[in-house]
Amino acid sequence: MHLPQAFRFTGVHCGIRPDGDRRDLALVVSDRPARAAGVFTQNRVCAAPVQVCRQRLPREDARGIVICSGNANACTGERGLADARRMTEIAAKSLGCKAEQMLVCSTGVIGRFLPMDKVEPGITDAVAHLGEGPAHLDKAAHAILTTDTRVKISSRTLLLDGRDVSITGFAKGAAMIGPNMATLLAFVLTDASVTKDDLARLAPVAAERSFNSMSVEGHTSTNDSLIFLANGAGPTLRGESLAAFDEAAIAVCADLARAIAADAEGASHLITIEVEGTRTEVEARRIAKAIAESALVKTAFFGADPNWGRIVSAAGYAGVEFEERQLSLWLGDFLLYEHGTPLPFDAAAVSAFMQQNRELTVRLVFMLGKARCTFHTCDLTYDYVRLNAEYTT
Amino acid sequence: MHLPQAFRFTGVHCGIRPDGDRRDLALVVSDRPARAAGVFTQNRVCAAPVQVCRQRLPREDARGIVICSGNANACTGERGLADARRMTEIAAKSLGCKAEQMLVCSTGVIGRFLPMDKVEPGITDAVAHLGEGPAHLDKAAHAILTTDTRVKISSRTLLLDGRDVSITGFAKGAAMIGPNMATLLAFVLTDASVTKDDLARLAPVAAERSFNSMSVEGHTSTNDSLIFLANGAGPTLRGESLAAFDEAAIAVCADLARAIAADAEGASHLITIEVEGTRTEVEARRIAKAIAESALVKTAFFGADPNWGRIVSAAGYAGVEFEERQLSLWLGDFLLYEHGTPLPFDAAAVSAFMQQNRELTVRLVFMLGKARCTFHTCDLTYDYVRLNAEYTT
Repeated sequence: MHLPQAFRFTGVHCGIRPDGDRRDLALVVSDRPARAAGVFTQNRVCAAPVQVCRQRLPREDARGIVICSGNANACTGERGLADARRMTEIAAKSLGCKAEQMLVCSTGVIGRFLPMDKVEPGITDAVAHLGEGPAHLDKAAHAILTTDTRVKISSRTLLLDGRDVSITGFAKGAAMIGPNMATLLAFVLTDASVTKDDLARLAPVAAERSFNSMSVEGHTSTNDSLIFLANGAGPTLRGESLAAFDEAAIAVCADLARAIAADAEGASHLITIEVEGTRTEVEARRIAKAIAESALVKTAFFGADPNWGRIVSAAGYAGVEFEERQLSLWLGDFLLYEHGTPLPFDAAAVSAFMQQNRELTVRLVFMLGKARCTFHTCDLTYDYVRLNAEYTT
Repeated sequence: MHLPQAFRFTGVHCGIRPDGDRRDLALVVSDRPARAAGVFTQNRVCAAPVQVCRQRLPREDARGIVICSGNANACTGERGLADARRMTEIAAKSLGCKAEQMLVCSTGVIGRFLPMDKVEPGITDAVAHLGEGPAHLDKAAHAILTTDTRVKISSRTLLLDGRDVSITGFAKGAAMIGPNMATLLAFVLTDASVTKDDLARLAPVAAERSFNSMSVEGHTSTNDSLIFLANGAGPTLRGESLAAFDEAAIAVCADLARAIAADAEGASHLITIEVEGTRTEVEARRIAKAIAESALVKTAFFGADPNWGRIVSAAGYAGVEFEERQLSLWLGDFLLYEHGTPLPFDAAAVSAFMQQNRELTVRLVFMLGKARCTFHTCDLTYDYVRLNAEYTT
């Protein structure tokens, strides 16, 4: 894996969580000033670090991001806002830059004040442990996790305008994940030379095609943040090179989004929903989202139950006009519903297919137009209930 | 319990379900022509019996409703529509009225054709077993159940214009329940003399204040039907008497809605959400619905976990503009969040309170206006997952 140049990383343990010695504080630093842009949760209740980042982005001279896990610093009022700013001040002081050049993110329990007596020395410790290369990136990627079971990292390298450019993203997220957001936390770093305006244009497009095209349970988080840092020197990318860069950056985001859906809390199936033949992409996404967020659809997948009526009925309340005869439905290669009429099928065979495949695709084909979308979700399992019934107490 | 006059009921076993000898076919008959109105699912995919009822309502001369459980007769195309009409023809023939005077409902699995070889003799059998009184009503109320664990019946008697008037409702519903609908199936019968126009006006109002103010998992069914039958003779109700009737009918619907939320699949808590101080009732309901349908909120209640941040964050993505400092939150008598700031609380004590009480109330008080709403939901439990993972196969 080629990582972008002049970025350093680390993840350390500072003790935000009461238990164990997990890494819970990550730091990403660009050794050169980086253009930066981001997209953030659309929740009216947004965490203190989100408010701080919104004020500071987009900008030309970002130096890095400090991230803590185990505490969301959300619903924490003025004190939470002061704590988030303080995190950037401590990092900036150790790095020799201005606080405004640093960004900040948090993820974890909502409604608790940060233990700043642990976070402050943790940040100083993190600065001392920064380093280049995959091992250090891995530490940062671990330090942002909460109930995730694995790190999510994706990387692409392209030859653009005669030189190698790398784009590396990492992310976390396992629940409280619904579209209308950027995702819990995702960071995309590149040594390409891209203007802040181009990054600011790219960020929402990339979010729409990746993190906004998946859902665990549709609960939009207070902390969703997707941040791009581009620290490339030399002439800025334009025209076809910029388009190639955009495409690669979107692919990195899509990789991370898919990884999040696959590692969703308690999930035993990654479900890909393909909606085709709608009038617009917005319609396709609305239908996919209704299906992805239906507890009845998700429990049926968990039970390897080809109960396709639940899928069709979820499509029916998505707010998109259609007639049943304009819809056909496939589960994997099995055509179960054709132009509004159920087809006979071997329920035991389809159920066995569902049981044997961790990754399943549902395809809904309408006859309304030529738009389409791909959407990811997961099933709803005993483990999802267990993990979320036991989360704080 | 005073039942309205000149109504007869029954519930019989005809064998729609492959297993057991449960009652699965109900019949309600008014011995006099009854004014009738209804509200039905807003799902684009709606069941054949819903389509038949929509064509026939409102009307002046309804004679009854035939209802089968175990099969929804939804997503069944032209054949399903012919089967639904055939059900009313068989009933009408035995009762000596026209098919158009009969209404029809179904509930159960989607996407399977009705076993008409069992349903047809079942209807004839039901006509032979009709009777008055609570024991016969109880049979009908049992015959419409699917995964419900108990019947839902509510009754009110009022003295209006010098004579006793009774309103009796019965309903079923345990999952695939989301607002934007009438509920799975609910029937409200009265011997009041009410015009069909007044019934047609009342039906959506009653639905809004009862069945549309609750949610199990937000999945709008294909079969939701709320039907009113009023067979009263004599001068029709007007003015204050009509208003008193409306109020009692809405109360009957609200009783049934609350009973459905309390008996939701696998539920271990009935959760009442009170939202106060919004600009409009629509805003209050939108916030309540977002909270009621959040899997994270519902699993926290199952775990007796006072994780109030999930409740506040769900309010935040409901699409209503507010600032955090305009919001305070109570769980039972515990004030946990006041004007945007978390209050210290004894988590173990609140958790014990949640564990010991099957019925819990969450109260969100905004400072935006004077509107309010009451909304019902339930928790998300292992049993919900088990029941829905195992439903058809």
